[in-house]
Amino acid sequence: MKIYKATLISIGDELLIGQTVNTNASWMAAKLNDIGVQVKEVLTISDKAADIKNAMERATKQSDVVLLTGGLGPTKDDITKKTLAEYFSTELVLNEEILEILKGYYAKRNRPLLQSTAELAYMPANCKVVFNKKGTAAGMWWDENNTITVSMPGVPYEMKTMMEERVLPRLQKQFKLPAIVHKTLMCAGLGESIIAEKIKSVEEKLPEHVKLAYLPNLGILRLRLSGFGSNKAALEKEIEGYSGEISVLLTNYHYGFSEITLQETLQNTFIEKGWKLALAESCTGGEIAAHIVKIPGSSAYFKGGVVAYDYDIKESMLQVDHQLLQSEGAVNKQVVEKMAQNVLTKMQADFSIAVSGIAGPEGGSDEKPVGTVWIAVASKEKVEAKKLLFPLDRQKNILLSTNYALYYLWRFVNS
Amino acid sequence: MKIYKATLISIGDELLIGQTVNTNASWMAAKLNDIGVQVKEVLTISDKAADIKNAMERATKQSDVVLLTGGLGPTKDDITKKTLAEYFSTELVLNEEILEILKGYYAKRNRPLLQSTAELAYMPANCKVVFNKKGTAAGMWWDENNTITVSMPGVPYEMKTMMEERVLPRLQKQFKLPAIVHKTLMCAGLGESIIAEKIKSVEEKLPEHVKLAYLPNLGILRLRLSGFGSNKAALEKEIEGYSGEISVLLTNYHYGFSEITLQETLQNTFIEKGWKLALAESCTGGEIAAHIVKIPGSSAYFKGGVVAYDYDIKESMLQVDHQLLQSEGAVNKQVVEKMAQNVLTKMQADFSIAVSGIAGPEGGSDEKPVGTVWIAVASKEKVEAKKLLFPLDRQKNILLSTNYALYYLWRFVNS
Repeated sequence: MKIYKATLISIGDELLIGQTVNTNASWMAAKLNDIGVQVKEVLTISDKAADIKNAMERATKQSDVVLLTGGLGPTKDDITKKTLAEYFSTELVLNEEILEILKGYYAKRNRPLLQSTAELAYMPANCKVVFNKKGTAAGMWWDENNTITVSMPGVPYEMKTMMEERVLPRLQKQFKLPAIVHKTLMCAGLGESIIAEKIKSVEEKLPEHVKLAYLPNLGILRLRLSGFGSNKAALEKEIEGYSGEISVLLTNYHYGFSEITLQETLQNTFIEKGWKLALAESCTGGEIAAHIVKIPGSSAYFKGGVVAYDYDIKESMLQVDHQLLQSEGAVNKQVVEKMAQNVLTKMQADFSIAVSGIAGPEGGSDEKPVGTVWIAVASKEKVEAKKLLFPLDRQKNILLSTNYALYYLWRFVNS
Repeated sequence: MKIYKATLISIGDELLIGQTVNTNASWMAAKLNDIGVQVKEVLTISDKAADIKNAMERATKQSDVVLLTGGLGPTKDDITKKTLAEYFSTELVLNEEILEILKGYYAKRNRPLLQSTAELAYMPANCKVVFNKKGTAAGMWWDENNTITVSMPGVPYEMKTMMEERVLPRLQKQFKLPAIVHKTLMCAGLGESIIAEKIKSVEEKLPEHVKLAYLPNLGILRLRLSGFGSNKAALEKEIEGYSGEISVLLTNYHYGFSEITLQETLQNTFIEKGWKLALAESCTGGEIAAHIVKIPGSSAYFKGGVVAYDYDIKESMLQVDHQLLQSEGAVNKQVVEKMAQNVLTKMQADFSIAVSGIAGPEGGSDEKPVGTVWIAVASKEKVEAKKLLFPLDRQKNILLSTNYALYYLWRFVNS
């Protein structure tokens, strides 16, 4: 079976002086990989005509598809369109449809259509136009000398919409790519190696055409099944079967599919059940609340939280016993349980989380080293607490604590 | 004056399947730019010998220095060292010094030195070894055919230490690079175009050899002065002069130098003065607290906060008047002022911030569109509030609100 190869050309001086990280290339690479196109190389170059032409020559030789991003805007350093027109030996001609879109765009915003902007309506005569639903600079598609060349804007959401709605579907069709089915199982609460041990029986029997990837990130593990074949329906059924088996083996750890976060899963459950949530955070310092509030619609179930960073606040706002704090410190079972129970009562919530720990780099001791974190979850009926020890730096320990706290809540409400 | 050119070669399949974003390349590009070396191109390639050799040929032709990262570990897909040895027509020979370092490293950790790991001590015979202070895989330096080639590990902090302590200083010396002086002024509270207007008089008189870059990010603007010349001391004095002039023109907006954040500046001031801080957050949902707690040592001044997301919590925890919330809603001057004053009193702090707004995408009205945010700052003596309208998506509106809130506090305590 032929393997189709892609070269990505990322154009822009901002990439070469380190002002912008090339996230476009990694996003595009992942998407191409998803449809079975292999990225051979990413070339990051400046906004210079000679460099663009040189990169085009290299890319065309080594790949079936060349995807360029950047340099399509209306400013004078945006030279990609003009350069590609020269490369494909053609002229820029007026595209009436784009001109009408531009007129409409500016009329709606009560702004005049400047000549520099109107130039966006002039397109290379021999390309197919890829319309831009999210912005003003259209893309271009050439199919010449056995290579497909597509030029897109560098603005991430404009490029992403173009890729998903136009470029990827067309490539799949034109290359007659094999059916590919992906399914991602989102897991938490266990390390990669223990998960691998638990699902060994499934992993060992996976056929050659089904791959399993482990993608861990700060307490969350994405398990990604990918199947390749000719019959999409059969493949979907097959992947579904393995996914089901893995899910059973990971009961209590597998919390959802696709790219769903723990806080989205929790939000769905809480809203469905009409439950309310409250938080009491010490070492995570508001990070759990911030994670929850990031999701639109969280106001429907999230009552709020107390960031009880100082001992005083644990006492005055959460009624943690002064003597207890003085004798045992803030990082222990009794303190987090009290924090969880009292914030639940005070905020009249159905469930609560409390976290207290030593994020580092200072504040550790032999008995309670940096990374020691206590997490409690409570309902009106009961409270549970766990102790963890995280090995990373301050910021990562905070994020690990946040993900583990959300995971314990998920497990608590689902048990 | 000769312009020295660099090509970066980033090696690793994880980069080409989109699993890892190439942050190494942008970091290195910024650092090279800082010493006056221009990055001509970044080539991102797979762990294949043929691709590495092909990239080396291209890079060597077009640049004075080639920096490679990745593929130096002990696993079997790490083939960079072996491939470069072939490219430079040499053999791998035992380096006793590295072997001793490896022995010590593993003895300290009570782990055996495996053969696969011991292979890290075999280095190409004709390279200079660049020792790795942060890990086990050493770097390599060749100076052949008028090109410097340096191969480094792909682990970011290992590579960064090598770059800063060894590679960049050696390049500056060997290339006899001009003196370069950078100075960054951190600003907040005003948009880029208004700042440009305010400092026009300085910007217009900057000589050819002094550049000013505007680097905006969600309410924070970095203004970066870069001077190029032969006499470093004179250049420093010159840049210092322009920096001073800009600073005066941006009084109340220029809050610090280098890459300092608002919360670090505040932390320094609060600890110095012995002040304490409390927060009352609605739409920012804990993000301001999380920003503060990210900084080690914040427990010395940060008492805590209330995330008062629900109306109930604004009433029960912060004593905002029920009637006021019912008649005016939560997004107005009176509510944020009450939140700020009451959290200050309850937490016995010296200063406080309160934020209430509509982050979006839902919840807006004609009178209070999405992006409307009220921010209050209070001390025992007074309270001030400002209304803002942010135009971005939910997550960015939250981050903008956070940065503006920290800015208003900075301005409030410094007035």
